[in-house]
Amino acid sequence: MSSAPSNSDDSGKHYRNECTGVALETVQQHQQPQDITLFGSCFCPFVQRVWVAFEFLGIPYKISYEVDPYKKPKDLLEVSPKGLVPGLKLHTFNPPRALNESTVILEYLEDLAATTTKRSLLPSIAHPYARALVRLQCDHVNRALVPAFYRYLQAQTEDAQIEGGKEFHAALEGLVALFERAEREILGGEGAAGEGEKRALAHGLGLWVEGGDLGYADAMAGPWIFRASNALKHYRGFELPKGTKFEAYIEKLFNHPVFKATCSTEDLYIDSYARYAFNRLNTSQVANAINFGRGLP
Amino acid sequence: MSSAPSNSDDSGKHYRNECTGVALETVQQHQQPQDITLFGSCFCPFVQRVWVAFEFLGIPYKISYEVDPYKKPKDLLEVSPKGLVPGLKLHTFNPPRALNESTVILEYLEDLAATTTKRSLLPSIAHPYARALVRLQCDHVNRALVPAFYRYLQAQTEDAQIEGGKEFHAALEGLVALFERAEREILGGEGAAGEGEKRALAHGLGLWVEGGDLGYADAMAGPWIFRASNALKHYRGFELPKGTKFEAYIEKLFNHPVFKATCSTEDLYIDSYARYAFNRLNTSQVANAINFGRGLP
Repeated sequence: MSSAPSNSDDSGKHYRNECTGVALETVQQHQQPQDITLFGSCFCPFVQRVWVAFEFLGIPYKISYEVDPYKKPKDLLEVSPKGLVPGLKLHTFNPPRALNESTVILEYLEDLAATTTKRSLLPSIAHPYARALVRLQCDHVNRALVPAFYRYLQAQTEDAQIEGGKEFHAALEGLVALFERAEREILGGEGAAGEGEKRALAHGLGLWVEGGDLGYADAMAGPWIFRASNALKHYRGFELPKGTKFEAYIEKLFNHPVFKATCSTEDLYIDSYARYAFNRLNTSQVANAINFGRGLP
Repeated sequence: MSSAPSNSDDSGKHYRNECTGVALETVQQHQQPQDITLFGSCFCPFVQRVWVAFEFLGIPYKISYEVDPYKKPKDLLEVSPKGLVPGLKLHTFNPPRALNESTVILEYLEDLAATTTKRSLLPSIAHPYARALVRLQCDHVNRALVPAFYRYLQAQTEDAQIEGGKEFHAALEGLVALFERAEREILGGEGAAGEGEKRALAHGLGLWVEGGDLGYADAMAGPWIFRASNALKHYRGFELPKGTKFEAYIEKLFNHPVFKATCSTEDLYIDSYARYAFNRLNTSQVANAINFGRGLP
């Protein structure tokens, strides 16, 4: 859990600013003007969750990846006051409107799809409790899993890395417990739903459950689980649990066509997270928040 | 901003476990069995935001206030794994289901109302961008305003209290900026909406805007603004800004029949927050999170 390269191994590699692999193909297919432009940076997991939602919900978008998050160009500051990506620019308004914060953008895209493409990452509104269980999963991702990822990756001493590894593992276990709860309470023998209803509900409960499709919590957590499989593996010797239902879940997630369409090749993430792994100063607002014990920006 | 009583002024008063004033009347009117029971503690702002939503959305509920949050009775642990209030018990399922986390419960009640009472704290889904601006306000409340409230109240040195007061002020100003943004972008001259549409949108944008009713962000932020007016005033000499549109907003909020129905008398909050103000050990999971530099539970 703690086979970290020492500080002297820091290659000094900088972030990357161009997607690679399948993600690059997806970028190239989304260069035409659309009602919405998504501003992103190629390695950012907060951007990826929004990107996954655009792809799954079938909402047309142009993607703009020329952004260098460490220079904060004026174009980006116009759409995102803190200079954070993801940022949306909405061209249907005059003047154009802007939107930032990944969780707010996800809700926005859900609302937009409800009246346009009629697709959704959530269970149907006819089942508010099933939706609530998915939202509990998302709440856990945002308040436990995501901060634990950065604490682990930024931990510099062996003790802190062992502690960080335990915390990240526990956060993954917490997510699994919430997946299992939704499966048991909505689809299990105790559930009140009939068979046809169960199939419809399974679809909205995400990839964890039999018959599920990509869901809201998968989009919310997926980018960090993916980075755990490459950046945390490389810098912290982290291994995702093998031979478990969780491994099968990850397999489904990483190979889902929508998720895959937003993934660059592993080297991009390994290069991009070097500055987190060696905890260089001013890596990002996220990194600073972790170092100074504050909530994430 | 820093006229704090010294530690020797700590009266040693304990939390209270019974609502007072108008809130007590509301509690007494909600003692009959219903499909949903709300478990709460009388001074808790996370409970109040949920309570406000029940009242505004017109969803029937029984309220259970015998809970002592410092003893964690089995009844509460059944509905809320961390022993946190608010917790819902849903009796329409067999066996009954449970739900916790105030933000998740708020979404649940919105979803439930969408198919039952048809009321909503949010702008119509036909206006996803207006909804997103309200969600941005809520995101700011949860990630900036609420933590700033506790850091300020728990600050023990004069320097920390001055810093805490500045941070809390800045968080209020940030909220006002987001209120103004929604007003300008949705209802202002630049807005694309027609007059009839504007009236409908104003209704959903909350009490800040002319013609607005109680909204999602008001429910989300209101409980802490109210406690700023009594507990922060008493223990930190804090004054909400006078003679401003913000003062008029607070007046509307505190006198809104739904909000008022969930407010106890000031002495209850002053007594209940003594342990925060003197930063006694093990006051709450929220207090510990602030002391140890972690995100809120």
